[in-house]
Amino acid sequence: MQFQTILDEINTEIRPLLGTGGAVATYIPALARVSPLQFGIALRTFGGQEAAAGDSATPFSIQSMSKVFSLTLAMRSLGETLWQRIGREPSGSPFNSLVQLETERGIPRNPFINAGAIAVADRLLSQGDAKTNLLALLSDLCGEAIHIDAEVAHSEADTGFRNAALANFMKAFGTLDNNTAQVLDVYFNQCAISMNCVQVARAAGYLCRDGAPPYAGPRVITEAQTRRVNALMLTCGTYDAAGEFAFRIGLPCKSGVGGGIVAVVPDTLTLCVWSPALDATGNSHLGRIALELFVTKTGLSVF
Amino acid sequence: MQFQTILDEINTEIRPLLGTGGAVATYIPALARVSPLQFGIALRTFGGQEAAAGDSATPFSIQSMSKVFSLTLAMRSLGETLWQRIGREPSGSPFNSLVQLETERGIPRNPFINAGAIAVADRLLSQGDAKTNLLALLSDLCGEAIHIDAEVAHSEADTGFRNAALANFMKAFGTLDNNTAQVLDVYFNQCAISMNCVQVARAAGYLCRDGAPPYAGPRVITEAQTRRVNALMLTCGTYDAAGEFAFRIGLPCKSGVGGGIVAVVPDTLTLCVWSPALDATGNSHLGRIALELFVTKTGLSVF
Amino acid sequence: MQFQTILDEINTEIRPLLGTGGAVATYIPALARVSPLQFGIALRTFGGQEAAAGDSATPFSIQSMSKVFSLTLAMRSLGETLWQRIGREPSGSPFNSLVQLETERGIPRNPFINAGAIAVADRLLSQGDAKTNLLALLSDLCGEAIHIDAEVAHSEADTGFRNAALANFMKAFGTLDNNTAQVLDVYFNQCAISMNCVQVARAAGYLCRDGAPPYAGPRVITEAQTRRVNALMLTCGTYDAAGEFAFRIGLPCKSGVGGGIVAVVPDTLTLCVWSPALDATGNSHLGRIALELFVTKTGLSVF
Amino acid sequence: MQFQTILDEINTEIRPLLGTGGAVATYIPALARVSPLQFGIALRTFGGQEAAAGDSATPFSIQSMSKVFSLTLAMRSLGETLWQRIGREPSGSPFNSLVQLETERGIPRNPFINAGAIAVADRLLSQGDAKTNLLALLSDLCGEAIHIDAEVAHSEADTGFRNAALANFMKAFGTLDNNTAQVLDVYFNQCAISMNCVQVARAAGYLCRDGAPPYAGPRVITEAQTRRVNALMLTCGTYDAAGEFAFRIGLPCKSGVGGGIVAVVPDTLTLCVWSPALDATGNSHLGRIALELFVTKTGLSVF
Repeated sequence: MQFQTILDEINTEIRPLLGTGGAVATYIPALARVSPLQFGIALRTFGGQEAAAGDSATPFSIQSMSKVFSLTLAMRSLGETLWQRIGREPSGSPFNSLVQLETERGIPRNPFINAGAIAVADRLLSQGDAKTNLLALLSDLCGEAIHIDAEVAHSEADTGFRNAALANFMKAFGTLDNNTAQVLDVYFNQCAISMNCVQVARAAGYLCRDGAPPYAGPRVITEAQTRRVNALMLTCGTYDAAGEFAFRIGLPCKSGVGGGIVAVVPDTLTLCVWSPALDATGNSHLGRIALELFVTKTGLSVF
Repeated sequence: MQFQTILDEINTEIRPLLGTGGAVATYIPALARVSPLQFGIALRTFGGQEAAAGDSATPFSIQSMSKVFSLTLAMRSLGETLWQRIGREPSGSPFNSLVQLETERGIPRNPFINAGAIAVADRLLSQGDAKTNLLALLSDLCGEAIHIDAEVAHSEADTGFRNAALANFMKAFGTLDNNTAQVLDVYFNQCAISMNCVQVARAAGYLCRDGAPPYAGPRVITEAQTRRVNALMLTCGTYDAAGEFAFRIGLPCKSGVGGGIVAVVPDTLTLCVWSPALDATGNSHLGRIALELFVTKTGLSVF
Repeated sequence: MQFQTILDEINTEIRPLLGTGGAVATYIPALARVSPLQFGIALRTFGGQEAAAGDSATPFSIQSMSKVFSLTLAMRSLGETLWQRIGREPSGSPFNSLVQLETERGIPRNPFINAGAIAVADRLLSQGDAKTNLLALLSDLCGEAIHIDAEVAHSEADTGFRNAALANFMKAFGTLDNNTAQVLDVYFNQCAISMNCVQVARAAGYLCRDGAPPYAGPRVITEAQTRRVNALMLTCGTYDAAGEFAFRIGLPCKSGVGGGIVAVVPDTLTLCVWSPALDATGNSHLGRIALELFVTKTGLSVF
Repeated sequence: MQFQTILDEINTEIRPLLGTGGAVATYIPALARVSPLQFGIALRTFGGQEAAAGDSATPFSIQSMSKVFSLTLAMRSLGETLWQRIGREPSGSPFNSLVQLETERGIPRNPFINAGAIAVADRLLSQGDAKTNLLALLSDLCGEAIHIDAEVAHSEADTGFRNAALANFMKAFGTLDNNTAQVLDVYFNQCAISMNCVQVARAAGYLCRDGAPPYAGPRVITEAQTRRVNALMLTCGTYDAAGEFAFRIGLPCKSGVGGGIVAVVPDTLTLCVWSPALDATGNSHLGRIALELFVTKTGLSVF
């Protein structure tokens, strides 16, 4: 398929819609001042072909998209034992809800709600320098150095009371082994990682290659683990709109409040869209529309 | 692929496991007295090839698997307006929970939890003789007459207090238009439909054929609608084990407490497994293992 | 104390407020058409002195106030065994919520939320003709025949879907022994009993007399049981405003959506106020203000 | 009444029961090592008469009983504005639940659940040195210096993850003005205050004296405020057993996990019982039995 042509078409169709819906996340200044009038899209195929359009080289805060990579790192280090403290079911509740955590005795429903990602961060911390290890993984996958936006990380820490509540609540249930402040430091820093669409599409490439990295080298995770990450993305990757995404787009996706969404067409390609204005479910408003266009134009969908 | 060989292998591997785990549903006598020492499997490919093994010709109560077909009928009659009263998100709660219904003002989370299927039954009832229409659809799809097991239907009605609670609760919120007793009659009867694995695999065939029926004739539902049914099955089709099924099996599935599970490999085949003993999540214990064997042996998975 | 003077004062102070706040219950026509411009108050002392003012002789639908009398009847017949299926704790949830019932496995929190009163009705039904027995108790206590308003009872049944949900839900958990339709018939009829302020103050008299009836005869319930009814009224008698009532009024009270509130000053008097317009918590708006005036003027409060 | 005789009788009846039920709180070492074989009781009448029996002079950790005094201090400083961020209704949930806090947008149900007491601590902190002010109030009321047990305070902080979760959660909703660590420091320290039965009965004396202090001096709080504290104690003072306490004892009570319970007979006396072993609801097992004996022997009850 002529992917560059398709991405150009999508960019042309999305541009007139910039500023027409959704709103930028405002809970931290560094996110609030990002212009909503931006849209980028990039993909990388199984075979290494790349295409990009729009603001695909502009770095943005990957936020919850980082959960895919921290999960990957934890699956690689811990294997099946990871799942002793983290579930794999959709939550049916807002991503930062404490209710289910109380009912289910401190075990988060899945690694993509905040509680689950904080529990993953705890496990990574027990394995060593979690922040460094995560950046190393991303840099390896992208083939260039990836950084944390320190201002965003600080802001997250200053305003992350609900995440602090989740961490302390899990600590009370024995779900976390490490000091909650240290765990939250890992979590806030991973959310503050800055990447652009091209980098994300490249970094996530192993998800469409049964775990094989974009360039040479050993598998990032096994084929079975890769399938599982994709399954989790499809059922739990877009907050409380996972059903709607499966329904309309039909691809494993993971979104972040920075406005990015990474999508996987298994055995085919990985795709990253970015536009900062979010809809009511916390997913990128135009990113979602762009993914629908992509699926319609290409017929690619797992269903 | 030599599907008959694969199904025979699976049957051979499952037989020694009969009676080793799970328990038959006991809430109604007609289900309680079904022998757990049974296992059937059948598939039908996109192209019409059929294969079957074990007790694939033994009829069983399809129970919640009927929700796929009642949803199909409702999508066909009502189009997008169906979704005004029914959500499409995973529930994260037991299939018969009332809690979420209260929080979300009487709108069931999706058409595969009991509340959602009862709401679908209400919509079908507003379109005419829902029971007759559903049997007609199934009989058309199978190419042979499908029946309701009257004893099971009566038992469902006699013990269905929780479903009666769900129906009355939705009625209180205005989600149902019809008399609750009539709506429940439709629902209890659809659950009591009796089919065997071969029939189910055949009847569900349109789900792997972009909506086209197994034999000649117009599409059952559109291609887009078909994709959506598959998406709902993957995210919501196996009660509170949908994440686990996506994770381990990676196919759209819908299970019933009669012990059946129907699975779809889009563009490829539909498959029905049946074994009456259920695991703790209400899904067929050996049916699930058989599906894992099938996916491992064939490499078929959407991820 | 010159109670007649006090009631006259209260009536004089309340009259100008008629029509200035709250709204009449509208869920059934017979309640919706009651004029909100009515206010009545009546009391009867331990010693038998009576006083009344305003529309104290106008009959109204006692609704949930009936729960005090059905509970009394059940405590008398069943003693401590009544509490095997009904709790005694405040609910912290709306009076007709199903959530807590699910969490607590079908055992209603207390006999004054709807679920609890329906469970009490079930127990009364197992003792015989519950409707007749309840009317007989009330008629005995008042010294004159008390009746059910048939139109209200019919309307309750026609619109009582949420109560039907509660009954079926409890039936699913085994909390009810009888047919849900019969139990609901008892419940809807008790809510439709029609009385005036003077009659209610008289009928409730045993609550300020350690269980002794207003005229001659054996105790209605024991002294200990009487104390318990009063305790339940104070902690659970006014829906989700029980804390506020305890805080501002400090007397055991039970309200109904017909606009009545019965209050007890232990060892001293019983009091009934009535004004049909309800506040946001479902309690009589002016009834509550009248009770605050009464407490302020008399200094009577249990605290 | 001969209160000394009554307390001696109760002590004689309770002694043989020591060690026969309940269990000492074990979440912090300093509480876990307290011998359960202790029982103390003390009262002080409206008129200043005192009586005591058993281990009434042994200091214990007052824990949640401190919430009565911190609330008193906050009501005195803030008047009605206190209630802008704290409710007054029974919770119907465990004392340390986060669920209701999420549903009700960060406003704790009442000042006696942990979340409510933490919110009160925040308000006290905005008024000045909350720890010092609280100790000063208690010392004034007792007529002797009251201290904080530093070991208990440290242990509370080390294990108080759930309270940290509550504080951070409320901070996320804007319920707290101050730094959560500082607010928790006040809260953990107030829980670690050490007093004996005689001191508690004396300190709480204003609650049976319409707000007047035990000795000379201005009212601690107004008569209306005093009534409100008593109302809150009755409806919310004994965790999820408030209904049961109202039902069986019928007095405003506030318990703590150190095993103390303070009770008020309005206009008559205040009473403190202490025995470290707790029942399943977190209230002193023998303290509760002792209160029931007291009520039975004296006939004192608000109902």
